[in-house]
Amino acid sequence: MSGRLIGVGVGPGDPELITLKAVRALAQADVVAHFAKAGRAGTGRTIAQRHVPPAAEELALCFPVTTEIPKDEAAYRDAIRSFYDRAAAALAARLEAGRVVAVICEGDPLFYGSYMHLHARLAARYATEIVAGVSGMAGSWSAAGLPIAQGDDVLTVLPATLEECELIRRLGESDAIVIMKIGRNLPKVRRALTQAGRLAHAIYVERATMAGASIVALADKADDEAPYFAVVLVPGFGQWR
Amino acid sequence: MSGRLIGVGVGPGDPELITLKAVRALAQADVVAHFAKAGRAGTGRTIAQRHVPPAAEELALCFPVTTEIPKDEAAYRDAIRSFYDRAAAALAARLEAGRVVAVICEGDPLFYGSYMHLHARLAARYATEIVAGVSGMAGSWSAAGLPIAQGDDVLTVLPATLEECELIRRLGESDAIVIMKIGRNLPKVRRALTQAGRLAHAIYVERATMAGASIVALADKADDEAPYFAVVLVPGFGQWR
Repeated sequence: MSGRLIGVGVGPGDPELITLKAVRALAQADVVAHFAKAGRAGTGRTIAQRHVPPAAEELALCFPVTTEIPKDEAAYRDAIRSFYDRAAAALAARLEAGRVVAVICEGDPLFYGSYMHLHARLAARYATEIVAGVSGMAGSWSAAGLPIAQGDDVLTVLPATLEECELIRRLGESDAIVIMKIGRNLPKVRRALTQAGRLAHAIYVERATMAGASIVALADKADDEAPYFAVVLVPGFGQWR
Repeated sequence: MSGRLIGVGVGPGDPELITLKAVRALAQADVVAHFAKAGRAGTGRTIAQRHVPPAAEELALCFPVTTEIPKDEAAYRDAIRSFYDRAAAALAARLEAGRVVAVICEGDPLFYGSYMHLHARLAARYATEIVAGVSGMAGSWSAAGLPIAQGDDVLTVLPATLEECELIRRLGESDAIVIMKIGRNLPKVRRALTQAGRLAHAIYVERATMAGASIVALADKADDEAPYFAVVLVPGFGQWR
């Protein structure tokens, strides 16, 4: 009798943007796992604070690296892969014992989330359930009050890590745009948006739905500092163009 | 003293995929509006059933057309525009009277939703708040247990209404893909995915998270019938390619 693995989306930051289903999944879990960077409380764990049952076994899955190492470096890839292997093994031991294991996921579990690395390692062997969550980008455009896409708009989600000319090309052929992983890529993103003629309607959003949120026209934001999880939004809905 | 307009995302269909914030916003509303097609209960209203306060005034905003008329037809555009004008005027009358007006939105209010047409007409004049919701596409990939995008994946949301060669071109240069508005476009979508070499991993999802859900490999789905709101998903996450 093996247990059940549940990827639980807890939303983008505001603790109220968790679903009733996520609350119930956490309440019924025997084991509650969350991702964290060494020495910091995981954001997902903080969001879910009120809903983790005191009797549950808690597992903090601590990433081995904390800075933005280029992801194509072999040493980085190996460290991350072995981290996910160990984390999956820890969950598998609980699943073998018949326990219900909930993994707290910021935003949505299967949308650019760490959880899917565990899912990839475990879903073939154990019963698995996904509780969809409000994504970080939905939190961002909602906090900005910015209708992002409508009708037959093409929406493109782009990592800011793309080459500048690649960004320009893709910006030029999308209606609605979400650019993720801004961080140190902000000056490049600004240049690409300018080149593509989309800067005027670009909105910069940092820590949407959380304390210390910053939402400004990108044109009014300095290139000095931006967190890795900041996003830039360009609405595709005709009326805002 | 004018009131407040709240766009309330109620998620993709499963009544448990509503957020705590949406539940509270509905509970505190003086007026609760929802979109509906003439003669049918609105899906959003059905999702929110348990949370609409009995004392609230309810407004059903009934679309004037129910079939898939080409959206570039002038008569269609005029009918829709005048419908949104009248709906916005009905809400404005309540807002002028100082009432809190919640508009129930399937999925997320600002992501391909009807609410944004009201938002566009009212947000400049009245205090407005958006409660982000779980999108229909997140409900779809979660129900399918399909990790959709990871790392530096480019994700593209495409309407199935695009020309076939345009679909082929865009499919060829995206990692993760969501194709919306399938309906009668299914044979074209299948041909385009085949041409772009992406058919083998395409998943067809109909009524995700609702009763009567259908989730199958697109290769195993006949071209006979598909609802307008069905989606096709192609994961970008490397391990599934």
